[in-house]
Amino acid sequence: MAHPMLEFWFDFASTYSYLSAVRVRALAQAANVALRFKPFLLGPIFKTLGWDTSPFSIYEAKGRHMWRDLERLAADFELPFRRPVTFPQSSLLAARVALVGLAQGWGEDYSVAIFRAEFEAGERIDDPATSEAILAGLSVDPRSVLDAAQSDDNKARLRSQTEAAQQLGLFGAPSFRTAGGELFWGNDRLEQALDWVKQGK
Amino acid sequence: MAHPMLEFWFDFASTYSYLSAVRVRALAQAANVALRFKPFLLGPIFKTLGWDTSPFSIYEAKGRHMWRDLERLAADFELPFRRPVTFPQSSLLAARVALVGLAQGWGEDYSVAIFRAEFEAGERIDDPATSEAILAGLSVDPRSVLDAAQSDDNKARLRSQTEAAQQLGLFGAPSFRTAGGELFWGNDRLEQALDWVKQGK
Repeated sequence: MAHPMLEFWFDFASTYSYLSAVRVRALAQAANVALRFKPFLLGPIFKTLGWDTSPFSIYEAKGRHMWRDLERLAADFELPFRRPVTFPQSSLLAARVALVGLAQGWGEDYSVAIFRAEFEAGERIDDPATSEAILAGLSVDPRSVLDAAQSDDNKARLRSQTEAAQQLGLFGAPSFRTAGGELFWGNDRLEQALDWVKQGK
Repeated sequence: MAHPMLEFWFDFASTYSYLSAVRVRALAQAANVALRFKPFLLGPIFKTLGWDTSPFSIYEAKGRHMWRDLERLAADFELPFRRPVTFPQSSLLAARVALVGLAQGWGEDYSVAIFRAEFEAGERIDDPATSEAILAGLSVDPRSVLDAAQSDDNKARLRSQTEAAQQLGLFGAPSFRTAGGELFWGNDRLEQALDWVKQGK
């Protein structure tokens, strides 16, 4: 029998998506749940809510708490998080590359590596060099992947995925969605979402 | 030696404050942490963020997820939550009464009872009759308490408490604050905040 499935929707600019991305595969494996990585862009969704950037940048107190919260959670998870110089970063390039990779089998490894580069190594994910180095490490040809990522077809694919996210009622990241349409928002709900799927609800 | 202390900041209109209010005393007792209940009003703080009501009412998808999330969490906590007809309710009267009660020793019981009336029994907390019934059950004289609650002094006390919340960087409820100034936002952080205090951080 196929494993029950959970969709993991994330934006590469999202701090809490980082906390989920680096943990979700081991947790899903332990729960016997199959994952589907779903990169999308929060930006267009935030625009419909009237925000032109991250709410953590718009609302100062909320942002201040988020960074402290991240530090505390990363310490609990024993993750080497460090606050990046630039926030939020453009996640456009990384999301496009991830879509190519998810169709070719290396997308999950790439996604986790991008999050680590951004929130552990302090690198710029909008710099193609960051993706190129990660891709080379995954033994895929950076040049042909970046070309495929920037093709019209692939750009349209990311727009479709973002529109799908909005139609599913997503308003933040990470979000988790079951085959039955149950939606969980936030890294804080990762374990609950996996339990839900595992229990066949 | 005195128990280490945690402040519990809440708004009576807040759904996630309900989840904390009905759990916090048993958890704090188990952790040997002394609690200070701090009712305040989110409304004036939301106004400074540009919101004229709850963000769960302003942002539809966020509100839809919140109600479903509350149902799931209440089931996990085995709480008889039910979605009230009116949301958000005015928490002004309840907050004023709670301040009187916290100075007289029955404020915590009253606060928990108000949250249960609102989110379990579906009652209106802006109706004085709801407070009167709870107060009578606590063996205090409803008439004299409501008079004290609506006195100029007590109204000023609630305004001060709300200003203090804003100055401490609170932007939502529930929030938890340690004597050392560590701030935790959300019912999801209740256990972490108690651990923090318990470990003497």
